[in-house]
Amino acid sequence: MSLIVQKYGGSSVADAESIKRVAKRIVETRKAGNEVVVAVSAMGDSTDELLDLAHQVTPIPAPRELDMLLTAGERISMALLAMSIRSMGHDARSFTGSQAGMITDARHGQARIVDVTPGRVRDALDEGAIAIVAGFQGFNRGTGDITTLGRGGSDTTAVALAAALGADVCEIYTDVDGIYTADPRLVPRARKIDRISSEEMLELAANGAKVLYIRAVEYARRHGVTLHVRSSFNNNEGTIVYNAPEQPAPDTARENSETPVEEPLIAGVATDLSEAKITVVGVPDIPGKAAQIFNIVAKTGANIDMIVQNVSAASTGLTDISFTLPKSDGQTVLTALTAEQGDVGFKALQYDDQIGKLALVGAGMRTNAGVSAKLFTALYEAGINIEMISTSEIRISVVTRADTVNDALRVVHAAFGLDSDDEAIVHGGTGR
Amino acid sequence: MSLIVQKYGGSSVADAESIKRVAKRIVETRKAGNEVVVAVSAMGDSTDELLDLAHQVTPIPAPRELDMLLTAGERISMALLAMSIRSMGHDARSFTGSQAGMITDARHGQARIVDVTPGRVRDALDEGAIAIVAGFQGFNRGTGDITTLGRGGSDTTAVALAAALGADVCEIYTDVDGIYTADPRLVPRARKIDRISSEEMLELAANGAKVLYIRAVEYARRHGVTLHVRSSFNNNEGTIVYNAPEQPAPDTARENSETPVEEPLIAGVATDLSEAKITVVGVPDIPGKAAQIFNIVAKTGANIDMIVQNVSAASTGLTDISFTLPKSDGQTVLTALTAEQGDVGFKALQYDDQIGKLALVGAGMRTNAGVSAKLFTALYEAGINIEMISTSEIRISVVTRADTVNDALRVVHAAFGLDSDDEAIVHGGTGR
Repeated sequence: MSLIVQKYGGSSVADAESIKRVAKRIVETRKAGNEVVVAVSAMGDSTDELLDLAHQVTPIPAPRELDMLLTAGERISMALLAMSIRSMGHDARSFTGSQAGMITDARHGQARIVDVTPGRVRDALDEGAIAIVAGFQGFNRGTGDITTLGRGGSDTTAVALAAALGADVCEIYTDVDGIYTADPRLVPRARKIDRISSEEMLELAANGAKVLYIRAVEYARRHGVTLHVRSSFNNNEGTIVYNAPEQPAPDTARENSETPVEEPLIAGVATDLSEAKITVVGVPDIPGKAAQIFNIVAKTGANIDMIVQNVSAASTGLTDISFTLPKSDGQTVLTALTAEQGDVGFKALQYDDQIGKLALVGAGMRTNAGVSAKLFTALYEAGINIEMISTSEIRISVVTRADTVNDALRVVHAAFGLDSDDEAIVHGGTGR
Repeated sequence: MSLIVQKYGGSSVADAESIKRVAKRIVETRKAGNEVVVAVSAMGDSTDELLDLAHQVTPIPAPRELDMLLTAGERISMALLAMSIRSMGHDARSFTGSQAGMITDARHGQARIVDVTPGRVRDALDEGAIAIVAGFQGFNRGTGDITTLGRGGSDTTAVALAAALGADVCEIYTDVDGIYTADPRLVPRARKIDRISSEEMLELAANGAKVLYIRAVEYARRHGVTLHVRSSFNNNEGTIVYNAPEQPAPDTARENSETPVEEPLIAGVATDLSEAKITVVGVPDIPGKAAQIFNIVAKTGANIDMIVQNVSAASTGLTDISFTLPKSDGQTVLTALTAEQGDVGFKALQYDDQIGKLALVGAGMRTNAGVSAKLFTALYEAGINIEMISTSEIRISVVTRADTVNDALRVVHAAFGLDSDDEAIVHGGTGR
């Protein structure tokens, strides 16, 4: 008997009909002889509706009360899902984050999981029931208060439960068929990836692939949880996200491709238009200045991404430091840096929110030096200018003008032989 | 410093504007130097909307899951109310039924309170905060599951908190100005009652007065909680429901009336069209038959109200037994009795759902024999036929045809000198 954790997002449980459809799928998994634990998000747009209500009451809702409010959303979806399953003749019990033992710190709105004690979930399974757990929510032991995990929290709930219960697989249901070599809305010939390592998935998620949240992938990687990203609209196999040491398994998608086996293996290409670039101009080129700047940035809580420091012009003793960050953090960071301008001694700040980022991800590039050259050549031939470059062992990211990044994506996708013969079917509903 | 428990119903918190209005009133109570605990219902029709969702998923929702679902309603209203109060610069914390220590038995949908341990509420008050508690909901220790208290549950939550915390008063906010001598929609000259004993209130509530739930009044009476029923749309004094031994205070409404002081004091008149009458025809007039019949009825869970047994006709040795019960229980009881007809040995069952009930309530009638005579005379003069009569020490109830009960109400209200000089203002919103 396998233990399967399934996660259904808001679009999968948007109304009563969708809930019944999901219930049926859960029952089928149970009937196939598996133990089933489900993490479920709030119905459709209901979280946004609750947020809207809160903002009608006050522009800045108290975080503790906002968490209390928002957790009503999963309470509704999980209860409806459990009663739907019961009406099909199978035992099912819904559990809040607190009842399921999702213990977190006390940071309302963005709590981190500190412990998972799913005793009641385990008991329900032992009694033959299907356990339905509220995604996104937790409980702080010190204050006794309800918390939420922030964006993508339901994915994290599912993975954390899978880890704590020792599940065989954590299935993440979504409205696409799996992870693609590129966003199929931008690259119609993007190919579904059958298997991808968690470290590659991490780079893709961190660089703009929206299907999985980076935090859930990190958690899965750290705890050795195998993910299966698949569509809730059909029964197709999706994408397995495996943990490298345990599963160095064949990747059929790549094997079927036209690239010879000695070529570097590229998993996929991601793009991101949500970032902006700040350049700190004329920084004295003396030790400690970069640290000083990024300490100021860190205090704002902004997540910075790429950092590039130009070589100092010897004649002036000054250098420029550029970094990218989410546009939403831009104003805060500019304000913080400006306040410390005298102390740091830089000349000016430049802000640019018309940038696009493209990231090429693949574990195979570790052992192959030609990947960068091939990438830069492809972009050059397409007339696309590169403004920043940053690399890791399994990723190369470049920043371009925002309006060229989609062209760059198609060019690079083709250059690395990722294009499939058919156009991707994005919404699997038609295939059912 | 007084401790005041306030209860706001769904119509008082129907939208963001109403919630802000209620928050302002709570803050005013706090500013006046009181400790404030609030029990709040779900917003407007949201409980019905959740019920509707449940029935879209399954015709018979599992009770445990239905409670999980419905408790989302107060979670939303209490969080919004708490954040609204906080935005006005006062500390406020919301608590679920479980967090507030509302311990119940495990009967989902109609749980009874077995203990109230409001430690977190007390702590919040000690720290200067206003405590907002979800009405209607509780928690069973044995199963660890969430329960709901059933109809009127939020009133019960408020009264139970008031009792456990030793509150000075429990204010029940509603959309009318208080308790009236009769329903002002039926009797425009009904008069607001300033003070009424809990036992009188109990009889009025049990006989159709809708403003307070009988269960909350019972709880208040048993635990010595003083209630103040008042409008959330104005600052008028409402109706004080006192516990007789402690407060044998003057009743200004009655003192101002035209009736001489030696006349029996009548608190009010209530009517009820929700009951039906079952007559068991031709019951053998031997000991134990009534017990046998009402044991069968009790097993169905139906709440029977009035019972009348006619004198046996000596020639036949048979008698008829009639009783009233909620129309919603009628079919179940008829089925149960029919199944046992052979055993009981009655001849037939008659079912009549076209009855109306009128109850005259007043502690003063204890010591005055003339009340019944006056009531029957008034009905006779108005040409209204009486079908059943039942009396307690402080109440006389009569059953009439359904279509004559409103006439009966007006006639009796006038006959006992309860009519005021002005027409009642039902919705106090205009008076604000």
